[in-house]
Amino acid sequence: MTWLPTLKTDTPEDGFQLAVKLSRMAVKVTQPDADTRERLRSDYAESADSLTLASHVVATNFQTVAAANEYWRPKNPD
Amino acid sequence: MTWLPTLKTDTPEDGFQLAVKLSRMAVKVTQPDADTRERLRSDYAESADSLTLASHVVATNFQTVAAANEYWRPKNPD
Amino acid sequence: MTWLPTLKTDTPEDGFQLAVKLSRMAVKVTQPDADTRERLRSDYAESADSLTLASHVVATNFQTVAAANEYWRPKNPD
Amino acid sequence: MTWLPTLKTDTPEDGFQLAVKLSRMAVKVTQPDADTRERLRSDYAESADSLTLASHVVATNFQTVAAANEYWRPKNPD
Amino acid sequence: MTWLPTLKTDTPEDGFQLAVKLSRMAVKVTQPDADTRERLRSDYAESADSLTLASHVVATNFQTVAAANEYWRPKNPD
Amino acid sequence: MTWLPTLKTDTPEDGFQLAVKLSRMAVKVTQPDADTRERLRSDYAESADSLTLASHVVATNFQTVAAANEYWRPKNPD
Repeated sequence: MTWLPTLKTDTPEDGFQLAVKLSRMAVKVTQPDADTRERLRSDYAESADSLTLASHVVATNFQTVAAANEYWRPKNPD
Repeated sequence: MTWLPTLKTDTPEDGFQLAVKLSRMAVKVTQPDADTRERLRSDYAESADSLTLASHVVATNFQTVAAANEYWRPKNPD
Repeated sequence: MTWLPTLKTDTPEDGFQLAVKLSRMAVKVTQPDADTRERLRSDYAESADSLTLASHVVATNFQTVAAANEYWRPKNPD
Repeated sequence: MTWLPTLKTDTPEDGFQLAVKLSRMAVKVTQPDADTRERLRSDYAESADSLTLASHVVATNFQTVAAANEYWRPKNPD
Repeated sequence: MTWLPTLKTDTPEDGFQLAVKLSRMAVKVTQPDADTRERLRSDYAESADSLTLASHVVATNFQTVAAANEYWRPKNPD
Repeated sequence: MTWLPTLKTDTPEDGFQLAVKLSRMAVKVTQPDADTRERLRSDYAESADSLTLASHVVATNFQTVAAANEYWRPKNPD
């Protein structure tokens, strides 16, 4: 059982959700305690810059997921 | 219904708007409360560094969208 | 009429200017008021770290513009 | 003997773990003392922004590892 | 006359110097006054984090220059 | 004589060391005085966030070096 069986997703939106998941897993690796994470979450969700930093991490992971999915472009038959 | 049906856009400017949207959606995922986001917005829109950080996130997402659209280059007929 | 008709530029220097423009447009989207932007500008132009952050955003956008222009490499005839 | 024999991993999850390892090795290079690192760890694991920054580094390294593994896409037989 | 006629350089080291130049030009665009830049420089050259941020910008620009030069790989004759 | 004759390395680990070197050279360019750098080093090696920022720069340079080495993938004989 794995939390990351593949980088392939059906849709761009699913890919975006996967990018969010990757961002959170990296936090989890550094801070494995769920209660601590929850407590910190309530702080930084009230800070504009913290939210922007978090958005940057998602953007970086979304680059990876989007590339993995060849940007969900329809296959070119030619 | 999805907020992100595709990364394809007709023009570079539309692609830039999509990059802005992606940046905001990642914030929304972390802070789902619209009132809080609105309140924070008025703060960071008055801080030069906050605006620069936000611009960095858009730039990162624009890389993804631009690549997905092959940079809106005219198709090569060869 | 659009402020971003294309990512194509004639020269690397024009591409760099476009990267600067993209960086500023992302700020404009978040802070549409020109007077506020002007006021903030005078602050952060006096802060070394703010300037470095701004330079990072330009660098990120320049990656996109340079890729879009295939790095302005002379076309290979082979 | 090397801590980094290859960027190839069997699965995306292993690749993510390698990205975490790369992020930590870069810290180790700058601060070789394990006790100091352990002490600092307990600080920043309690700071939301520190965790987000760490997650950003993992995301950047994961881009590299994922590209190295061609995103763990099944080989296309055509 | 242009300060950026090409992204092509003869060697990786020249490419690195070009990345430094690109980083500085982006600062110059935001703060055109040379005296102010010189004054700020003496500050941030004394701050470890400022130097790290500056190094990050150079790294980002070096990615662009290295890609433009196809990483200075010897041409493959096949 | 050059400190950067090539981006090619024999192994991923050597590539990682080169990424560290590139990160340090960019600092050296901004702060050429070795004593100052040494003094600052002892500060930031005690700060978790400084170490994370430094790790981010290495990650960015490692992307470049890894791409230059085509990720040290074994050559495909086909």
